[in-house]
Amino acid sequence: MSREKVLLAYSGGLDTSCILKWLLEKDYEVICFMADVGQEEDFLAARQKALKIGASEVVIKDMKNTFVTQYIWPAIQMGLIYEDRYLLGTSLARPCITVGLLETAKEFGCSIISHGATGKGNDQVRFELSAYAIDPSIRVIAPWREREFCDKFQGRTDLLAYAKANNIPVSASPKEPWSMDANIMHISYESGILEDPGHIAPENLYLMTKDPVKGPNIPSRVEITFSNGFPIRVSELSTGTTFIEPLDILTFLNKIGGEHGVGRVDIVENRFIGMKSRGVYESPGAKILHCAHQDMEIFCLDREVYRLKKHLQEKMADFVYNGLWFSPEAEFARSCLSNSQKNVRGKVVVEMFKGNVMAIARESVNSLYNKQLCSMDVHGTFLPEKSSGFIEITAMRLKETTARFGTPNFNVKMTRKNSTYYNEFK
Amino acid sequence: MSREKVLLAYSGGLDTSCILKWLLEKDYEVICFMADVGQEEDFLAARQKALKIGASEVVIKDMKNTFVTQYIWPAIQMGLIYEDRYLLGTSLARPCITVGLLETAKEFGCSIISHGATGKGNDQVRFELSAYAIDPSIRVIAPWREREFCDKFQGRTDLLAYAKANNIPVSASPKEPWSMDANIMHISYESGILEDPGHIAPENLYLMTKDPVKGPNIPSRVEITFSNGFPIRVSELSTGTTFIEPLDILTFLNKIGGEHGVGRVDIVENRFIGMKSRGVYESPGAKILHCAHQDMEIFCLDREVYRLKKHLQEKMADFVYNGLWFSPEAEFARSCLSNSQKNVRGKVVVEMFKGNVMAIARESVNSLYNKQLCSMDVHGTFLPEKSSGFIEITAMRLKETTARFGTPNFNVKMTRKNSTYYNEFK
Amino acid sequence: MSREKVLLAYSGGLDTSCILKWLLEKDYEVICFMADVGQEEDFLAARQKALKIGASEVVIKDMKNTFVTQYIWPAIQMGLIYEDRYLLGTSLARPCITVGLLETAKEFGCSIISHGATGKGNDQVRFELSAYAIDPSIRVIAPWREREFCDKFQGRTDLLAYAKANNIPVSASPKEPWSMDANIMHISYESGILEDPGHIAPENLYLMTKDPVKGPNIPSRVEITFSNGFPIRVSELSTGTTFIEPLDILTFLNKIGGEHGVGRVDIVENRFIGMKSRGVYESPGAKILHCAHQDMEIFCLDREVYRLKKHLQEKMADFVYNGLWFSPEAEFARSCLSNSQKNVRGKVVVEMFKGNVMAIARESVNSLYNKQLCSMDVHGTFLPEKSSGFIEITAMRLKETTARFGTPNFNVKMTRKNSTYYNEFK
Amino acid sequence: MSREKVLLAYSGGLDTSCILKWLLEKDYEVICFMADVGQEEDFLAARQKALKIGASEVVIKDMKNTFVTQYIWPAIQMGLIYEDRYLLGTSLARPCITVGLLETAKEFGCSIISHGATGKGNDQVRFELSAYAIDPSIRVIAPWREREFCDKFQGRTDLLAYAKANNIPVSASPKEPWSMDANIMHISYESGILEDPGHIAPENLYLMTKDPVKGPNIPSRVEITFSNGFPIRVSELSTGTTFIEPLDILTFLNKIGGEHGVGRVDIVENRFIGMKSRGVYESPGAKILHCAHQDMEIFCLDREVYRLKKHLQEKMADFVYNGLWFSPEAEFARSCLSNSQKNVRGKVVVEMFKGNVMAIARESVNSLYNKQLCSMDVHGTFLPEKSSGFIEITAMRLKETTARFGTPNFNVKMTRKNSTYYNEFK
Repeated sequence: MSREKVLLAYSGGLDTSCILKWLLEKDYEVICFMADVGQEEDFLAARQKALKIGASEVVIKDMKNTFVTQYIWPAIQMGLIYEDRYLLGTSLARPCITVGLLETAKEFGCSIISHGATGKGNDQVRFELSAYAIDPSIRVIAPWREREFCDKFQGRTDLLAYAKANNIPVSASPKEPWSMDANIMHISYESGILEDPGHIAPENLYLMTKDPVKGPNIPSRVEITFSNGFPIRVSELSTGTTFIEPLDILTFLNKIGGEHGVGRVDIVENRFIGMKSRGVYESPGAKILHCAHQDMEIFCLDREVYRLKKHLQEKMADFVYNGLWFSPEAEFARSCLSNSQKNVRGKVVVEMFKGNVMAIARESVNSLYNKQLCSMDVHGTFLPEKSSGFIEITAMRLKETTARFGTPNFNVKMTRKNSTYYNEFK
Repeated sequence: MSREKVLLAYSGGLDTSCILKWLLEKDYEVICFMADVGQEEDFLAARQKALKIGASEVVIKDMKNTFVTQYIWPAIQMGLIYEDRYLLGTSLARPCITVGLLETAKEFGCSIISHGATGKGNDQVRFELSAYAIDPSIRVIAPWREREFCDKFQGRTDLLAYAKANNIPVSASPKEPWSMDANIMHISYESGILEDPGHIAPENLYLMTKDPVKGPNIPSRVEITFSNGFPIRVSELSTGTTFIEPLDILTFLNKIGGEHGVGRVDIVENRFIGMKSRGVYESPGAKILHCAHQDMEIFCLDREVYRLKKHLQEKMADFVYNGLWFSPEAEFARSCLSNSQKNVRGKVVVEMFKGNVMAIARESVNSLYNKQLCSMDVHGTFLPEKSSGFIEITAMRLKETTARFGTPNFNVKMTRKNSTYYNEFK
Repeated sequence: MSREKVLLAYSGGLDTSCILKWLLEKDYEVICFMADVGQEEDFLAARQKALKIGASEVVIKDMKNTFVTQYIWPAIQMGLIYEDRYLLGTSLARPCITVGLLETAKEFGCSIISHGATGKGNDQVRFELSAYAIDPSIRVIAPWREREFCDKFQGRTDLLAYAKANNIPVSASPKEPWSMDANIMHISYESGILEDPGHIAPENLYLMTKDPVKGPNIPSRVEITFSNGFPIRVSELSTGTTFIEPLDILTFLNKIGGEHGVGRVDIVENRFIGMKSRGVYESPGAKILHCAHQDMEIFCLDREVYRLKKHLQEKMADFVYNGLWFSPEAEFARSCLSNSQKNVRGKVVVEMFKGNVMAIARESVNSLYNKQLCSMDVHGTFLPEKSSGFIEITAMRLKETTARFGTPNFNVKMTRKNSTYYNEFK
Repeated sequence: MSREKVLLAYSGGLDTSCILKWLLEKDYEVICFMADVGQEEDFLAARQKALKIGASEVVIKDMKNTFVTQYIWPAIQMGLIYEDRYLLGTSLARPCITVGLLETAKEFGCSIISHGATGKGNDQVRFELSAYAIDPSIRVIAPWREREFCDKFQGRTDLLAYAKANNIPVSASPKEPWSMDANIMHISYESGILEDPGHIAPENLYLMTKDPVKGPNIPSRVEITFSNGFPIRVSELSTGTTFIEPLDILTFLNKIGGEHGVGRVDIVENRFIGMKSRGVYESPGAKILHCAHQDMEIFCLDREVYRLKKHLQEKMADFVYNGLWFSPEAEFARSCLSNSQKNVRGKVVVEMFKGNVMAIARESVNSLYNKQLCSMDVHGTFLPEKSSGFIEITAMRLKETTARFGTPNFNVKMTRKNSTYYNEFK
């Protein structure tokens, strides 16, 4: 009987190399899959390594364009940000990679997929929920969740020893005291010294963004054009250099944003499986796009549409973070959010400088902004006496409440006791 | 019969000076009220001016401490931010000033209040809703909403002519081509040249924050301690200088943040009365506190409590922006939000540099962050195999959906037509 | 110069007849508009009356089919219900009628519309917001908001006197001590004796529904088929009588539901303009459809899609109640809600009896209900041990919270003081 | 070494009797725990049975009063209802029982608890999440999730055979073709013939409510008094009989509601673990209280407070359904919801008849209902011309939208294709 075929999401690193070997020892035939989503990686070297360890095949798929157009651009269009700070660079890559993985599994007749994500993290969830949604019959081997594997490999030392014993080449350069995940949208850093949330991330950690202290001493400005909520053109204002392809736009903004140290965050976040973790992220281009999109969106959308959309956006950010990109709820939220953007069209000028990015001007033929209406210098068609009725009718509930229950409690005292403050409500 | 007494919210500027005179011509007795909420103002000169025009009395009330402890600190504790960008510096000052106004009205027996807010803006709403909530029987004269007044004063030229004709002193320095509102929390700029949302605000507009290009070339770090969600201590890390009184904390952070050009935003926002307007704001200290509080809050709060709280926070920001600080809904939201903060206690280090502010380290005895639990290096008590069950049960809905309706639509094509992109859902 | 032309929303009753006369006295040319949305009305008599008073023209438009297909059916599809109890019968009719009104205004060259809605109610808002959304340049005369008109007509007595003086025919039958609004979806009753919310509505008030005490002594069952969330077929199970046209379906359900006294509610609700009011409603057919749709919807929709949809539904109910059917927010919410219903397809059996209606059986080829999966008698493919992992991972947050803050407060005492209960939280 | 002690949640039925025996065979010492939450049960017979099988001890705890005052009353106060239809009778009992279970476990030194809930249901989750929240160190044996146990007992036949082989007494009466869970709040029925959602539940299934067809031919009315959102007094209007103790109130309303067949629902619901299931419930007293509370609440609460509260209420219903009664989010939501009820005070008259319950009159000294303000017969202090300004300002967004994007799409056609309807948006 032929051996069962496993498709392994392979990174070229120590963990997945050991997993590859371990799967082979378990008598599986193993095919390796590498998705190029823009990470710096010597794919050819990794392929050689996997073949040397014993993979029957190594499939390398260039998914950069798919990642940008089908995941990052929609995320910008939807305005996704997790817990107000994280732009979801890893969360978005996972379903993208999983599509490539499952297409390859189908092609090679693998009924099992395997990955090197740990049992404590979000990525296992994202890989597997995506996989199960695409193919409910797929089977998953997650060695870091198997007792036998975890017992065998209690830490990095065990992996190194196993690699040595099995002639698995190990990078000569010492490992940084943190782990990272990179793609064209961002690099994330976590674990190691970062597990102490009070430990300030060292400056040499950042690879996509320059230390703001060392960045250019004059700000840079770019003009970003949106249509249907998507960025469709970016021009550097000083040079006029212009990009229109999504991948080119993102690459350019990563470069110019990276120069200015834009897009770093250092946060503690809530993982889906219920624990808090600390992550440091840099996503220069995505941060610039997010900032510009937000500006254009509020400029164009009706106030109440924006509020409905915002609620869906926050839900969608949770869905994506939690690995539910392929789910009925995400499909529904996405179709609504996409629909909300039909009038988000125009240009925003953003300025980048020393770690900061800020929208400073915008224009749109679709905006509900009406200069004549809001002008303080022109009465225009606006009849200011109408506001009196508006205010008095709006005040009716308040007057009734005061009439019934007395004057509101405008002296909520903030009292200091034992060196803290308390609100003292009535 | 004695004349009816009007209490006028007086600023010392051209508009309210003309209103004062106009009210006197209408045969009201007018008392002027000025609240010191931290704006740069020559209160004594303003008093002289009002008395000279004909005010029977000028009441100047130092409300800085009230403003900071009863409005700004709670706003920081609640995490308020309007439409994701505006920290509500003016919105918070209005109910505070109105309390002073109505207390003074009561003291002087005025049954009418008056103000110089225009008929297109938010401030009229904030003043009057606050006033009606505190005293449903109060009457309001809003000259800028009265046809007669608006007809008489069609623009600034008419005001200047009236001032000249009535011996009302006018500032010698030419008016800036925008209007501003200042207090200890922020300065806002709007109208004039800013009414074109594509016109970049000139650098000389900003008064609280230095041009980031000219700021210090090395970052500054401060440690901010929170308790019950309130900032209770701020230390500059390089010097050890420490502040604990709210007003001192805010003053210090305004200074150091201002040096670094922190806290500027240039936005288009949605006014309560239904139009969009463009505002430029600078709020250095509040921005630093907001950033630090957000970091501490997500660090301390349970994930789901944070989500419930976030919903209330966004509603509360709308209430405050819309002038509903004193309302049943704001009272309810505030008591809930305050209650959510009981465990928000600890220290955050934030770094300021060239316009940017960023949390870089934090610690708390109350945090639900558990280093041992999330560590990638330690299995600890966590049983990674449990995650398998979690993922498979979570996947059940997805598998069922795919079983019923087929593979999800992972190729939502983003197609380009007529130079824009469209999602093509199935 | 020819007189300005006003199009008056005419009902044939005392109020709008007096308004018609009053407008003529004001030297307007008046055309009357009557929309037939299913109310019991002698339209020909009303036409004669209006012409006799002096209307230049009386336009009667049969909008029953439009009302059912473009307003009621979408409301059922979206699941709209205001404050959990009111099915929005009047709220939905207003934008429908306004469309007819504005089309007629355009046809007859009227730049002004007029109506008899009072200044305290919701209908003025619904008419006018709809009108302004359709034609921002339209002008509105609302006599019940004009001081002169209100001074002239302080009460019903003044109207009757004016009618008599002007030869306006008045119904011989005495007015009921309440007012009502009827259409094919419902009848609402309010004001008069109903203004005391403690006054029980008299049995003779109800016109669409029979007193349940006098209804049939055996239940009736109908089967309702939904597709895309719309009712597309209704069969009476005992007779097999079947209807497929929306208007026929509603008419039939009104009849059978009315026989059983189904669809009455007696509520206090919150009006848009800020006051509470008491309304008594009967909407037999709509209640049956709402109940059946709810059953089918939860049967078919994914759990999380249902929650997203529910939030939008509640917002949409507020929009419709507040007169914002034609608004950017309602357009957006409606497109999302409509999209959520694509899989809501199947059959529900509902039973009506003595005022009650209840879904008792349902089937659907689209349902995510999986009998084999949920069966307690069959293990099937479900691996129950997976639930352990799900529960333990879900418990992690709870365990961490207890570890940090101690055992939860499971003895929130409910204490009785002064004959009420209080929760005593820690 | 002494055997480990397990505390088993024992029902006296076949499943938990077999589990008891099985645990003993596994060499555990087993103590049985029975919570009396109002179910009809011969507790003494069950105790004898358990002792005979081999339990070292059987603890029977009367938790009826705790259940009513600490779980049901707060649920009524908060207005909890799951997916709009299920009043959470079982969901609320689980944390209550778990508290008793863990207190008993502590008392008897048991470090393990066990229960007979299946691996597909909600109850396993509710028991265990409650248990872990109270004591993170507790261990759980859930036999229906253990492969060995499930293999041994593939169905009821195996249980019966095992019972016979082990001298476990089995009820002589044949099992109904469904399972049920009963307590003082409700009885739920599921599985067996009910697993076909199209199978109409037989009339003889219902035990708490009489067939409406056979109920009294005249309606009954009760007056329910609320304070702080809690029911504090119930009077039958015809007899004047009055109850004030929570347990007495519920018992009485169960009786009178049961007579009228009030409180039945037959629904498909979404389980926490991701599947849909069909449940039939009857909860006469709770339904009456829920209906009356809803009426009183909307009568008393400010419109916007109600909306904030509603959002928290829906979240809380999900928390309770999902077993998260003891969780940070439920604690937070509950404190907010409790706080929202401080003004919910007054009396409601409800009428019950043939399966229906309906509020028909209400009064409150706390209501914001203002008869004079809303009266159509009295102008009062209300100035109707103010509404014009309110409407025109509210219309501003709509006019701007139409000015920019054209007339709204008021002809969303509902087209019929292949016997269904579709909305055709622009």
